[in-house]
Amino acid sequence: MQIYADNAATTKPSKAAVRAMLSCLEQNYGNPSSLHHIGQAAAEALLQARQDIAGCLGCTAREIYFTSGGSEADNQALRSAAYAGARSGKKHLISTAIEHHAILHTLKQLEEEGFSVTLLPVSETGMVTPEAVQAAIRPDTCLVSVMFANNEIGTIEPIAEIGAVCREKGVLFHTDAVQAVGHVPIDLSQLPVDMLSLSAHKFHGPKGVGVLYAKRGTPLHSLICGGAQERGMRAGTENLPAIAGMAAALREACANLEQNAAYVAGLRDRLIAGLETIPHSLLSGDRKNRLAGNVNFCFEGVAGEALLLLLDAKGICASSGSACTSGSLEPSHVLLAVGVPYEAAHGSLRLSLSAENTPEEVEYLLKAVPEVVTRLRSMSPVWRDLEEGRKPHVI
Amino acid sequence: MQIYADNAATTKPSKAAVRAMLSCLEQNYGNPSSLHHIGQAAAEALLQARQDIAGCLGCTAREIYFTSGGSEADNQALRSAAYAGARSGKKHLISTAIEHHAILHTLKQLEEEGFSVTLLPVSETGMVTPEAVQAAIRPDTCLVSVMFANNEIGTIEPIAEIGAVCREKGVLFHTDAVQAVGHVPIDLSQLPVDMLSLSAHKFHGPKGVGVLYAKRGTPLHSLICGGAQERGMRAGTENLPAIAGMAAALREACANLEQNAAYVAGLRDRLIAGLETIPHSLLSGDRKNRLAGNVNFCFEGVAGEALLLLLDAKGICASSGSACTSGSLEPSHVLLAVGVPYEAAHGSLRLSLSAENTPEEVEYLLKAVPEVVTRLRSMSPVWRDLEEGRKPHVI
Ligand SMILES: Cc1ncc(COP(=O)(O)O)c(C=O)c1O
Ligand SMILES: Cc1ncc(COP(=O)(O)O)c(C=O)c1O
Repeated sequence: MQIYADNAATTKPSKAAVRAMLSCLEQNYGNPSSLHHIGQAAAEALLQARQDIAGCLGCTAREIYFTSGGSEADNQALRSAAYAGARSGKKHLISTAIEHHAILHTLKQLEEEGFSVTLLPVSETGMVTPEAVQAAIRPDTCLVSVMFANNEIGTIEPIAEIGAVCREKGVLFHTDAVQAVGHVPIDLSQLPVDMLSLSAHKFHGPKGVGVLYAKRGTPLHSLICGGAQERGMRAGTENLPAIAGMAAALREACANLEQNAAYVAGLRDRLIAGLETIPHSLLSGDRKNRLAGNVNFCFEGVAGEALLLLLDAKGICASSGSACTSGSLEPSHVLLAVGVPYEAAHGSLRLSLSAENTPEEVEYLLKAVPEVVTRLRSMSPVWRDLEEGRKPHVI
Repeated sequence: MQIYADNAATTKPSKAAVRAMLSCLEQNYGNPSSLHHIGQAAAEALLQARQDIAGCLGCTAREIYFTSGGSEADNQALRSAAYAGARSGKKHLISTAIEHHAILHTLKQLEEEGFSVTLLPVSETGMVTPEAVQAAIRPDTCLVSVMFANNEIGTIEPIAEIGAVCREKGVLFHTDAVQAVGHVPIDLSQLPVDMLSLSAHKFHGPKGVGVLYAKRGTPLHSLICGGAQERGMRAGTENLPAIAGMAAALREACANLEQNAAYVAGLRDRLIAGLETIPHSLLSGDRKNRLAGNVNFCFEGVAGEALLLLLDAKGICASSGSACTSGSLEPSHVLLAVGVPYEAAHGSLRLSLSAENTPEEVEYLLKAVPEVVTRLRSMSPVWRDLEEGRKPHVI
């Protein structure tokens, strides 16, 4: 059996997305800036994709800025707010300890450029509270950035409430919704959010394309300058095939959102219930406010990399920590932030499901994971120390 | 008849490029950072593409940094050299008046950040001389950036000679080779170039993907930070479908380069000879050092936009000025820089050919363009003034 349970790292493009891309690659291949009919056909498809995406998100087409993915959108959002803030002496940014590195590393760079940054701690389940945001806002705060849902532990943050606090205080609010869009209902006509980042390959769209939503009137800074594309805010010939593929995938994801989420959450809950029976295992994240597809466990006395390799040998594709830091030996900053003990954070396993997964796959996972954990523990000197009482269990 | 003669704006992706993309979209859809077998298959395809591209360019795979296109590569090259220079007090950059806006606008921003910029003038045919570069280099010069071939008038610059001057003076040298790669032989193992930008959609690869080549040891600055992709120099999940498509297109373009260039140059020369018979027409660019596919004429007394629209009605896709500035009323900065009179620069026509164009299409163009020019002139009060001697002809 082959099971793809790494949908938080990337998803398989849907048939509709691939079809939309192919049609642009083979037929609608013009440059949307060209005045002739082939260029204008491309420009029309670009506008249609923009309108479709805006329709799915509850905003206007003019508020959609296409980027090369989630990281670029995150970088642009932070720099836009920082540079606009600096012009009126506001050089303080607020974010959280559990953001993606596209946020955290940009904040680090901004600190080196003279900005100051507050990273809010989170609860044991990874929740950020509106009260903590409110308390952190200073007169010189130019931005609050809180992710919509966490990529590792799946916690969904109270974005409406946090946004309301920011709006009341007159501070720009950005949310990295890369893991949420297409999976959690989002209506920007109702949400008090000024900027939002998304990435197509997390909802069965193509890689290398994303969106920065910026509410009308939000000051933007262009990271890539040159041509006048994206209303002067993002130069470069538009990636129409990927943009059309993203629009197709998002339409599909939004049309089936509730149904898919209910189905996937059912698989997730069955998986969580089964894996919790493994002794000295710890579920990370929030039980209620949780992405439908996210399962994240730490198994004491087990190394995450070994776990992945043995699961892979059984045909199971999973992840430990986030994809872009895998390969590093540091345990996940997210798990540490929610208080998972350092030793246990090394033995983390993220299974991220999509609507393509089946109940049979879940049953297979429920057999395979305990087997692999038991096998690794039987070979582990650390585990022996724990079991024989020479070291105390931490979970 | 439908004729696509706007290949400098963008090209139709080749069958091989589309095939390579499809295979990644449908099968090899993993995240190259994931440790499991689906991720590792993606990582292998990524490495293969990197090696293929390096092989085509005569560099090593480690010198290839994937970007979202030519604009991003240009922006990154300039900022990398500028910020590295600034660390040792070198804050002067040299470029030319005929660069793409991705270069010119970035330089403008750098000026606002306190850098100083010298834009070299060019000859009447658009040539930059090594002597001019040499004379402009100062002790505080951190970068020379000269495009390999111009996107509007097709002039190919003496890159080897300019690079040699830079190397002798110990100054970093970047070339925007977006219009040259896949069209002009380039061997980076021989060329004294430190950084080079390319964009796949100019050689029948996909849009939204490009490369910044940076010679081993060249200091790079990351425009987009986050994950550790591209050796820490460009964050974001790698756009494997587009990268694989780019590699396939480049392999094809390089394998057939001489043959295609000879064929296309034949079409070009026939077209130039024919269009030169139109009275008060002016060929821009260099007759010898010219991209095989580039034809650029100014027709006095004719507005470029009207020309394009009438040609479009005859099925001909062409361009006036560069695609990303079309829609603006300013005449092209490139035509002004080579000394085309302001009034005449408004009536420019760029026909850019590829190996997909045919001799029959050229014959059709040779009938259609003079017809359209004559028709527009017959309706133009400006032309009447010129013909009746109330204003002097400028070309
Ligand atoms: C010379 C030159 N440089 C840079 C670019 C920008 O490339 P891209 O549109 O892929 O960002 C182009 C094409 O538009 C170009 O012709
Ligand atoms: C929460 C979050 N933000 C940002 C990103 C970056 O997205 P991309 O890889 O498309 O740049 C990711 C995915 O890697 C993510 O999970």
